[in-house]
Amino acid sequence: MTKITTGASVSLDGFIVGPDETGFEHLFQWYGNGDVHIETTSENVPINVTEASAGVMRDLIAETGCFVVGRHLFDITNGWGGVHTLGIPYVVVTHSVPDGWERESEHHEFVTTGFDDAIAAAKRRAGDKDVGLNAGTIAAQGLAAGIVDEVQLDLVPVVLGAGTPFFSGLTGAPYVLEGPIRSVQGDRVTHLRYRVVRR
Amino acid sequence: MTKITTGASVSLDGFIVGPDETGFEHLFQWYGNGDVHIETTSENVPINVTEASAGVMRDLIAETGCFVVGRHLFDITNGWGGVHTLGIPYVVVTHSVPDGWERESEHHEFVTTGFDDAIAAAKRRAGDKDVGLNAGTIAAQGLAAGIVDEVQLDLVPVVLGAGTPFFSGLTGAPYVLEGPIRSVQGDRVTHLRYRVVRR
Repeated sequence: MTKITTGASVSLDGFIVGPDETGFEHLFQWYGNGDVHIETTSENVPINVTEASAGVMRDLIAETGCFVVGRHLFDITNGWGGVHTLGIPYVVVTHSVPDGWERESEHHEFVTTGFDDAIAAAKRRAGDKDVGLNAGTIAAQGLAAGIVDEVQLDLVPVVLGAGTPFFSGLTGAPYVLEGPIRSVQGDRVTHLRYRVVRR
Repeated sequence: MTKITTGASVSLDGFIVGPDETGFEHLFQWYGNGDVHIETTSENVPINVTEASAGVMRDLIAETGCFVVGRHLFDITNGWGGVHTLGIPYVVVTHSVPDGWERESEHHEFVTTGFDDAIAAAKRRAGDKDVGLNAGTIAAQGLAAGIVDEVQLDLVPVVLGAGTPFFSGLTGAPYVLEGPIRSVQGDRVTHLRYRVVRR
């Protein structure tokens, strides 16, 4: 059965991005701290992680059938050039299809009719696999909608002080989770996976 | 040598208190989730934790010679009735000595001349033991001043959405840490200890 998950590299104080789009050199340092190469569609920024982190990443890649992302991430990555870095299809929640892009392809889809429709589209694409919600506003909407099954924190030993929270603009808190149901120590990252307790 | 530490129960999104002083039933649930009793000076709220968490708490109690707390925590606990729950002396950073209290005793001390003097007073009281900074504004001042050696997150699987951050009003971020140098899984809490990297 398709699970809905969300996960991200996050600072000890809960931020997935630091102030003014900073902090990535800390949050993503673990992507370069090992000698196990993870194949991606963009080898400009190679991912070489520890064996421990590689296990976590391989599972993520194998289990995730589609991502749901917001327009902001789409814009700053320019849609990963058309194909997501991990080769996984993605659905963009947006008000309009950006200039120069098809509404959908094998690799992507823009949904302009709201969050629920985006989730439905992602589930269709994911088939038996999981749907992965981008951390930030999308994850917050999913948690508030009661549809998130699991949350993974890739907890990084840095304090950023401010920035974008993992669940941005969250309503309806508190939310209780169980776990960690998986805990893996990498190099400058602790991978902690939790299950959301259904209300 | 005296170390300066800080630690607290913290939600997955980084809050030590939820909105409007809520969330304690989640953040402190692990204090009642086991059968190992921790002796305190106030048995109204008995602490009974798992063996794993007891080990962490016993080390904290054995290693900490004095706490530094803010006036807010002092006020809401009414100074723990005069003696801190864990029997450890505490120094309060405040603008004025509250009515009905001596400036200092065996168990407590009010410092009205600023943060640095409070740290100095706590170090005198701690002797060879550690000084523990209360999470929140005191921890943030300590981190910004470059005097914090170790940070312990008692990470609780709840999302509070808003509230008081572990480092409140922090300036000078980012701060890089190492670790976890210790990781202990309790019941509804993961005790993670980090070392602050000196600049």
